[in-house]
Amino acid sequence: MKTFGIDPGSERTGFGCIDSSGSRHRLVASGVLTAPPRATFPEKLTVIHTGLAALLARHRPDCVVVENIFYARNVRSALKLGHARGVAILAAAEAGIPVAEYAPAEIKRAVVGYGRAEKVQVQQMIKLLLGLDTLPTPHDAADALAIAICHVHAATGAVARRIREEPPKTTARSWRDYRP
Amino acid sequence: MKTFGIDPGSERTGFGCIDSSGSRHRLVASGVLTAPPRATFPEKLTVIHTGLAALLARHRPDCVVVENIFYARNVRSALKLGHARGVAILAAAEAGIPVAEYAPAEIKRAVVGYGRAEKVQVQQMIKLLLGLDTLPTPHDAADALAIAICHVHAATGAVARRIREEPPKTTARSWRDYRP
Repeated sequence: MKTFGIDPGSERTGFGCIDSSGSRHRLVASGVLTAPPRATFPEKLTVIHTGLAALLARHRPDCVVVENIFYARNVRSALKLGHARGVAILAAAEAGIPVAEYAPAEIKRAVVGYGRAEKVQVQQMIKLLLGLDTLPTPHDAADALAIAICHVHAATGAVARRIREEPPKTTARSWRDYRP
Repeated sequence: MKTFGIDPGSERTGFGCIDSSGSRHRLVASGVLTAPPRATFPEKLTVIHTGLAALLARHRPDCVVVENIFYARNVRSALKLGHARGVAILAAAEAGIPVAEYAPAEIKRAVVGYGRAEKVQVQQMIKLLLGLDTLPTPHDAADALAIAICHVHAATGAVARRIREEPPKTTARSWRDYRP
């Protein structure tokens, strides 16, 4: 199962693609899409959309996964993030790939086993799970890989074992049923 | 000058295209893009994007104009609106059309002369300005026409005359310089 995680942002959009067999994961690709510093906002959205469309066409994942945000610093940053997230989800829908989403705490819980884990704990666990030599960087790419791993764990039931002591507060909705 | 106004929303996206010569405007097209009631969120975004891309290809406007939102009921509704607005702006950028944005109060001020005008006042003024037989409906389409008219007034300096008594609090940023 090939899973493509996206951590959208108007300035930087992290992505991470993994190939999983049971609880074993292999890193396929990860990185960050960044717009030129002087790009206008529409240009930035085009960079995210075009970049993701090309990556999805190349890697042909079975599922795209994005973080679900319920809280943002303020309405303005929520709006901005929404734009980036919208064109990311659009790229997946256009490629005919189902989209799933998970809340930040669910992602941390699935990867580290604790919903309020620190960024570095998430990076260390990704390094371990993917058998990497170094910590995954930059953090946007690491977050995207965590999102992808969370989905595989959820899909394979590994999450259920992982969080036995801590009942999940499931806030995520899934678009896995989505067929274009 | 052909101007295409968009009032984006995840459920309904209003659009209105006008052809203007000085302060005279002609209605080219207006309406609402709606997704099927049971559509998933990614499907809804695809409907907005595909629909707008087709309309922009057909009408080939000189400029696309969207409302700029700084306030929303809450972070969640801002996020949702951001998604719709993001794919709308993307459609314009992909078509190589510059995008301008105005704050809601600026739009009302430009069309009615008063930043806190009621919806029906805006509709009546649009009816007058476009020489329509009836009030423009639905309200999403009327709002999109108001956004388009606002831009023409701003571009031709009509706004400056209209708001002589009420100094504008300009909060809008413009992407008019945007060239793809």
